[in-house]
Amino acid sequence: MSEEKILLAHGSGGKLSHDLIQKLFLPLFLNPPFEPLDDSAEIPDQKKRLAFTTDSYVVNPLFFPGGDIGKLAVCGTVNDLSMKGAIPSYLSLSFIIEEGFPIELLKKIISSIHATAKVAGVKIVTGDTKVVEHGAADQLFINTAGIGWIKEGVSLSSKNARPGDAILLSGYIGDHEMAILSQREGFQFQEALKSDCAPLNDLVQKMLDVCPAIRCMRDPTRGGLATILNEIASMSNVGIVIEEEKIPIRESVRGISELLGLDPLYLANEGKLICICPSGAEGDLLKVMRSHPLGKEAHLIGKVTEENRKKVVLKTLIGGHRILDMLTGSQYPRIC
Amino acid sequence: MSEEKILLAHGSGGKLSHDLIQKLFLPLFLNPPFEPLDDSAEIPDQKKRLAFTTDSYVVNPLFFPGGDIGKLAVCGTVNDLSMKGAIPSYLSLSFIIEEGFPIELLKKIISSIHATAKVAGVKIVTGDTKVVEHGAADQLFINTAGIGWIKEGVSLSSKNARPGDAILLSGYIGDHEMAILSQREGFQFQEALKSDCAPLNDLVQKMLDVCPAIRCMRDPTRGGLATILNEIASMSNVGIVIEEEKIPIRESVRGISELLGLDPLYLANEGKLICICPSGAEGDLLKVMRSHPLGKEAHLIGKVTEENRKKVVLKTLIGGHRILDMLTGSQYPRIC
Repeated sequence: MSEEKILLAHGSGGKLSHDLIQKLFLPLFLNPPFEPLDDSAEIPDQKKRLAFTTDSYVVNPLFFPGGDIGKLAVCGTVNDLSMKGAIPSYLSLSFIIEEGFPIELLKKIISSIHATAKVAGVKIVTGDTKVVEHGAADQLFINTAGIGWIKEGVSLSSKNARPGDAILLSGYIGDHEMAILSQREGFQFQEALKSDCAPLNDLVQKMLDVCPAIRCMRDPTRGGLATILNEIASMSNVGIVIEEEKIPIRESVRGISELLGLDPLYLANEGKLICICPSGAEGDLLKVMRSHPLGKEAHLIGKVTEENRKKVVLKTLIGGHRILDMLTGSQYPRIC
Repeated sequence: MSEEKILLAHGSGGKLSHDLIQKLFLPLFLNPPFEPLDDSAEIPDQKKRLAFTTDSYVVNPLFFPGGDIGKLAVCGTVNDLSMKGAIPSYLSLSFIIEEGFPIELLKKIISSIHATAKVAGVKIVTGDTKVVEHGAADQLFINTAGIGWIKEGVSLSSKNARPGDAILLSGYIGDHEMAILSQREGFQFQEALKSDCAPLNDLVQKMLDVCPAIRCMRDPTRGGLATILNEIASMSNVGIVIEEEKIPIRESVRGISELLGLDPLYLANEGKLICICPSGAEGDLLKVMRSHPLGKEAHLIGKVTEENRKKVVLKTLIGGHRILDMLTGSQYPRIC
């Protein structure tokens, strides 16, 4: 691919992102037993199992309804650790800042990082700041890496789904990406649309307390619910069926999506999780989720099947079936 | 500072960088017993002591004599862990890439990362890729975070220097920054000038084997030798005296520095270390250093003193004395 260039879609979390990782990264960085497609690595050579993750944040605009790049940078990394069943403990924080960026805004972002870290119960323990000349970066980018320890007896992996398992979703999908797009494009809504950006670690630990046998948790960020379910179906070599009517989507998100020709199933979320659990555990889990502020709208949305391996099937409202592929191409850049 | 804006000097590693950290970051992120000015954090609540660090890399050009942004991103983080006396083990790797960046170049950078990680004995275990639209970032930025475990009995800190201690330097200073500048400005030299970019972990472990009582190690990156010695003098509340004639500087680096009005003592290095050790240990340490490929030109360059607390004094070639302050302002942006 000597003439190929990086496209925005290479950062979408969808097919091209996967291709890039498969072709360029995996041949060099495959270190069994590490699972390179997972958002966090588990470090196995300690008595306590350590989880380690990183994400860079390039969201535009920096401030949006429901959050800002600082809050996002803490939540995103806390959530990646949480999806491993780890208790997030320590974060690193690294800035790339464009020359001329107002220090007042930097202060606001740092305050937001501080407040979010406090809510999530994580400590920022190391960091770095680089400044580049005007025009060499758009305002400000943040990287956070995080470490946490995985509870004994917990083993969450996208490889673990089994036929018969139940699929739970913690609430409304599409809020984050739609809030970003609306802010960027200047859309107005009757219903105030806010990013769902939130640290999921407390909810996750309460869920693991009631059901340590949970197979897999994932936060449907870039690529949305449909892409993440495809990853699970593929990595576990199972089929997945979900029911459209069970998936909570706000009217405003649905409306704007129709207007723009977007599918909410592919919109990014920053405070939602998908949980795959053994059949029979869904009742207890839904109870715990619905009693938590971040899981009030939790639903059983589908199940894992023997048939249709590596495929995700949507039972539509009108009774039809539709295969949901991974996100192809890029919806919008810089949503996280 | 409501009207203030970020200047390139805020990223220089010198005075303004310190001010920014002191005024904006420390009030919010001071978590005793963490030392927020150190480049790595030590995580104390494990039986094995864990070190954790991060750095973003924005070097321009991406490829330079002696290295590239990928090699730099591995070495920089390996070296930050090494300066804590930790054995670097696992790295995260995160890219921010400008739309349109040639995939061929990305492959070259990834290969370089892979090769350097192999030399350093570290594993890349988690990562992230973001793509931003054309013009929103200058080509490609990398963040690496790293973790490693600190050997029992080792305690390195910029707070540990004591009057009487010896100060060792592992070799020629200024090579990295001067190689970058030369590449950028198109300078030609008779003597090929290359970045010293290298992973120091092997050298460090051999030094700690022969002298576990080493007080402090630092790699003089941004801000150079003079700035790092100032940090140590200040954090340990001691004076530091170094002798100009003992500091190895290549003729080409000295020549170009004079031409450009730069002081090599403030130039960035990426494969050098400063070691402060108890008086008497310097002989064994120099022997180990000089027998290692990365320490062949190691020298005893000075000592720690009771007088001139928090100051660094340079004994000049002609017998005078000069106080070396921290780097003020920015020399050149994007050298790492």
